[in-house]
Parts: sequence; structure tokens; C-alpha cells
Amino acid sequence: MTAKVAPNLREIPVTVVADDSFAVVANRSAQLEHEIAEHPDRFRVLTGDRPTGPLHLGHYFGTLANRVRLQRAGVEVFLVIADYQVITDRDSVGNLSGNVRELLLDYLAAGVDPTTATIFTHSAVPALNQLMLPFLSLVSVAELHRNPTVKAEAEAAGGRALSGLLFTYPVHQAADILFCRGNLVPVGKDQLPHVEMTRLIARRFNERFAAGAEVFPAPDALISDAPLLLGVDGTKMSKSRDNAVELRDNEDRTARLIRRAKTDGERTVSYEPHRRPEVASLLLIAALCTGRAPQDLAEEIGGRGAAALKALVTEAINEYLRPLRKRRQAIATDPGYLRQVLLEGNARANQIAEQTLQQVRSVMDMAY
Amino acid sequence: MTAKVAPNLREIPVTVVADDSFAVVANRSAQLEHEIAEHPDRFRVLTGDRPTGPLHLGHYFGTLANRVRLQRAGVEVFLVIADYQVITDRDSVGNLSGNVRELLLDYLAAGVDPTTATIFTHSAVPALNQLMLPFLSLVSVAELHRNPTVKAEAEAAGGRALSGLLFTYPVHQAADILFCRGNLVPVGKDQLPHVEMTRLIARRFNERFAAGAEVFPAPDALISDAPLLLGVDGTKMSKSRDNAVELRDNEDRTARLIRRAKTDGERTVSYEPHRRPEVASLLLIAALCTGRAPQDLAEEIGGRGAAALKALVTEAINEYLRPLRKRRQAIATDPGYLRQVLLEGNARANQIAEQTLQQVRSVMDMAY
Repeated sequence: MTAKVAPNLREIPVTVVADDSFAVVANRSAQLEHEIAEHPDRFRVLTGDRPTGPLHLGHYFGTLANRVRLQRAGVEVFLVIADYQVITDRDSVGNLSGNVRELLLDYLAAGVDPTTATIFTHSAVPALNQLMLPFLSLVSVAELHRNPTVKAEAEAAGGRALSGLLFTYPVHQAADILFCRGNLVPVGKDQLPHVEMTRLIARRFNERFAAGAEVFPAPDALISDAPLLLGVDGTKMSKSRDNAVELRDNEDRTARLIRRAKTDGERTVSYEPHRRPEVASLLLIAALCTGRAPQDLAEEIGGRGAAALKALVTEAINEYLRPLRKRRQAIATDPGYLRQVLLEGNARANQIAEQTLQQVRSVMDMAY
Repeated sequence: MTAKVAPNLREIPVTVVADDSFAVVANRSAQLEHEIAEHPDRFRVLTGDRPTGPLHLGHYFGTLANRVRLQRAGVEVFLVIADYQVITDRDSVGNLSGNVRELLLDYLAAGVDPTTATIFTHSAVPALNQLMLPFLSLVSVAELHRNPTVKAEAEAAGGRALSGLLFTYPVHQAADILFCRGNLVPVGKDQLPHVEMTRLIARRFNERFAAGAEVFPAPDALISDAPLLLGVDGTKMSKSRDNAVELRDNEDRTARLIRRAKTDGERTVSYEPHRRPEVASLLLIAALCTGRAPQDLAEEIGGRGAAALKALVTEAINEYLRPLRKRRQAIATDPGYLRQVLLEGNARANQIAEQTLQQVRSVMDMAY
């Protein structure tokens, strides 16, 4: 199954990688998982989200749970809250500070540990953003135009003119990954072109400005096999469609949302993802929450129909999220702590970014 | 006469502004000169150069002398040494630190006063560079493609692919002007589109992110009527063509260069810019250096021909540049002072850029 739910940093899926090269990357990812298990200390993960609203179940099972898994395996995790990227495709920042707070709460409630992970916002790390300048010199406008994800996002934006910020965001993303010398980037299949551009920028930087010395390591993509979860209206889960269970929802709201989930006319519940996608997605959610197989759950419900299925799904979600939601509520009562987490993450990101920038200036003969 | 010699920041001339709108800008410039004379403290100038080598006479009479004039009139001057812009159109930075040193020496020798002017390098001011991100969201890729100066530079680069850095450099220039709230940008006619883009970015920023409040004032272009000086080979003065008297040259080198200046077959010297451009350019250089009219100088030489003209030009240049060159040599013996000037300029630029960025974060709801 391809990762269609909540890929990192952006949310518009595109299929671009030829199956051959995808097989290579998938193979490499499997190999990386072995290396992570043996030597987690050799890896640094960079990933993140645009702060456009609170996270939902699709984000959780698509990316967030994987980040927590990597962190618990002993990998160092950097999480960027990509605040400038909010305005790549809209004029207003919205309730930005509120959305940053919600995102931070979701991270912490889900188990991101700020004593080992570094959570930071783009806007607070000037030395990272400065890397845009040398990096922009390393890619051509033609290469940026060819980037399939940028293309797809430009199309998804409808009649809206492609902004300079959206056009150059793969370069900004390269700065995210390379400033902290992240060497592992968990992505869905559709995000591979960005990792490729980062690898290209790292390679060209080393060649042009450092006589081939490895100032920047080329990062690896870690393909995540995220499950395809649908919103209750049968379309992609999305904040703007109000069709997804948010992590922060209470149990009643979750029950109400699942009750209005689209199913089909068949009485007997069965797990057939292609023929019955809505029913299968509900079963999959319950399976992810309970750790049981979706086929077994379907069999258990059998002829008791959609109502029984929805009751089971609601119970599974609420049960599964109960500890997370409890943590979330507790943390939310302490705004000082939230501010502290972000201050410390930003301070650490700044320290690393300044060191990297100093080295970049030095190899570029800019240390006057 | 249009400004074809050493326009600010870039060196490739393009004619793009319809004569009507140019007349408006030229009119406004004349008005600005009156205001400068009366209230110099109301103005802050932003201008600068790419550090690609030492400055020559064309730069001096084209831009540098004008900057010193504005400074002496009491206008605050910001001079950016645009080090990242060196790699917009080439792969290597060259002898960058050496070129920065030469440029700095030229500035100081020409009379830029670092106790009132702020001289800084792009690479040292991260908060300025960060402004690229919000500003990139305010222009479309189509608008960047339409920028005539970018177009011309892309063409001038021949087969070389247009880099992301060259493509976005009008946005970087907007960050230069707006970070210090420069309200006066001395430019040649061909640079007007950049000032227009800065005005557009300032206006859009205020509208979108500050509910119309004037976070950034829209700067004015100050059209400089720089004379058209030719190199000794009869083409545009250029470092790379070795056809121009450098400010740092000694008197012998200046004499040798002028001796090989292209003239024409006519014995009698006369000032006819259209019919005899090379002779006219030599007369113009001598006129600028002596403060006399080129026609008078031509009459004085009369039938004594090219050799007498060249002797007069050489003497005029060497006489005029003698105090500048003496200062230059004296300052060059004190590398500690040069370093100090740049350190202090960069510190001041950083202080201002950080204040501006803080305000930008605040209006964008990014002050978490």
C-alpha cells in the first residue's frame, strides 16, 4: 500500500517514482530498518509538519506514530514546525500561533520526548533559512519546474498563481534536512523527489564549494508503509473536510463523527479494501487501534452490520487514544511548559544551524 | 544620457521602462534631490556591489562618487557587499575574501565614512536573509519570470542554466532595501524594475500581514545620470576585459593603459559623442577628473592629436585619483582596521535586521 495519508511536510500525494527506482528505495529502507535496530545512534531524523491545524488519526498512523517509534528505538529526531510554509499556498497565516500550540500538544501527547527530540519553528532559526541562498545557486529554475510535487501542488492550488515560496520549497526543505545533517527522512512515496533534490544539493555543494569534502551527507529516504485511511465521508482524511477524528477530540465527538461514517448497503461486514473501501478503512482503523487483524474483526461483527462496526471502531479509537488525550489535557494546562519546550528546541536548532552556517561560510571563503 | 556604467548591484544594462513612466521617475528624482538638500535626515540609502573584483573609473563616476556625495549631504548610507550574489551566474566564488577586501578598500579610499555609513556582507546577516521567506510568498513565479533584468541576465549568461538564486535575486534585493527600511535607492534606468518589485513586496506585505499598517515603506528610486564611459578597447568598461583604469592602479599602469586606448584616424581632437565615441569617452574622463567641459579640453588639444589627448587624460586621472590612492595604500597597511570596519558594519546590520525580523514575526503571528 502506498503512503497516501499525511505524508511529511506536505499533504498532496503524487506518484512520480518509476517502480524500478521505487523498488530500490524500498529495498534500501528495509536495510535501513535493520541498521536502525542495531545502531540507532548513527541516525538523525528530520521531519515535520505545516502548522495548519490539529492532527488527526491519519497523521497519527501515517507519520506521528512512526516518529515516536524511531525516537524510542534510540534515533535522534528533529521536528520542524514549518510555519513559513503555511503561506506557500494561501495569503493569510490563519490562527498561526494557535495552530503551532495545537501541533506541539499533539507531538508531546503522542509521545515525542522533548528531552531527546528537537522541536523547532522555521521562523526562529535564521541561520537555517540563510542556507537557502547558497542552495538556490545549486539548482536551476528548470530543475525546480520539473519537481513533480511542486507541479502537483501548483495544480492542486487551482487558478492560484504559483508563489515564489512554493516554487522554492524543495530548496527550503533541503536546508531543513542539511542544517542538522539529518541522514534519515521518513517519507511517503510521493515525497521521494524532495529527498532526491536534497541529495543533489548536498552533492553539488560538496563538489563546488568544498572540493569534494563531505560538508553535507546525502540523506536517505525511509519509506513508511503508511496505511490508507479514509475520512468518514469516504474521501482522504483532511482537516478542512471535517471528516477525521482529531487526536484532541473528546470521546463523544469521536462517537458522533464515526456514527456518520459512510458505509455501504451490505449487511454483512467483510474486509475487502478494493470492493468496499469505506468499510475496510473503518476496520483498518479499529485494527490499528486494537492490534488485531481487520479480517478477524470483520468476522467477529459478521451480520450485525454497520452499527455494530461503528460501535466497535468508536470504542477502539477512544480506548486507544485515552492515555494520549489524558496527557494532552494535562500538558495543555501548562502553557509555560509548552513555551519552554519550543524555546529550548529553537535554541538547540539555532546552535546547530549557526555551527553549520559557520562551516558553510568558511568553505565558501566568506569568513572575513 | 542613460546610466550604462556600473549600475548598482548588477552590471548588465537593459532598457525596459517605457519613456512615460521613466519621465515620471526622473521627475520624482529631481524632486527628491531638493528634499535631500533640505532634509537629508529623512533619507536612508541602500546600495551595494557584488565583490567580483576591484572597482574601476566607471564604477567610481557611475555610482561610488554619488554615494559619497549623498553621504556628505547628510543622508545615511547602507552599503551591501553582495557576496552570495557572486554565485548567481558562476559556480565558483573566486577569490572572494580577497575581492571583499579590495571592495572595502575602494569604498573607504573613495570617502565612504564607516562612522556614519554601514558596510556589511550578506553572508553575515541571517535575519536579513530570512526575510526572503515571507517575501517569496508575495511574488508569483510568473512575476519573477517577467522581470526584465533577470531575463536579460539569463540571456547574457549564454547557455548557462538560470539558477534559482539569480531567478529570485530581485526578492533578495527587496530584503536588502527593506530590512533597514531604506527609502532611497540610487539606480540606473535599467535597475528600475527591481525597485518596482521592492515597492510591490512592501505594499503586499503591509496589506496581507499587517492589515495595511506600514511595516515597510515603499522606497523611491533615485535615478543617477551616470556618464557613459568606454573602456580603452571601445567597449563597456569591465573588470574581465582588462580595459579600465582601476582605482587601485598605480600611475604607471594607468599611463600604459591609456596609451593603448582605441581612438580614430582623425588628427584633430573634437568632442562628438555619437560620431567619435572613443575620443569622446576619453575627453569625458578627463572632464570628470578636472571639472572642465569636454569641449574646452578638445579645443585646447586641437590638432596635437591622440598622443596629446592621452597624455592629458593620463595626467587628469592620476592627478584626480592621487589622494584616493594615497588613502587606499595607507588603509591597506592596516588589515586590523579593515576587519574592524566590516565587523562593526555587520554588527549594526544584524542589530537592525533582527529588530525588523522581530516585527515581521510579530505581525505574522510568529512570536510564540
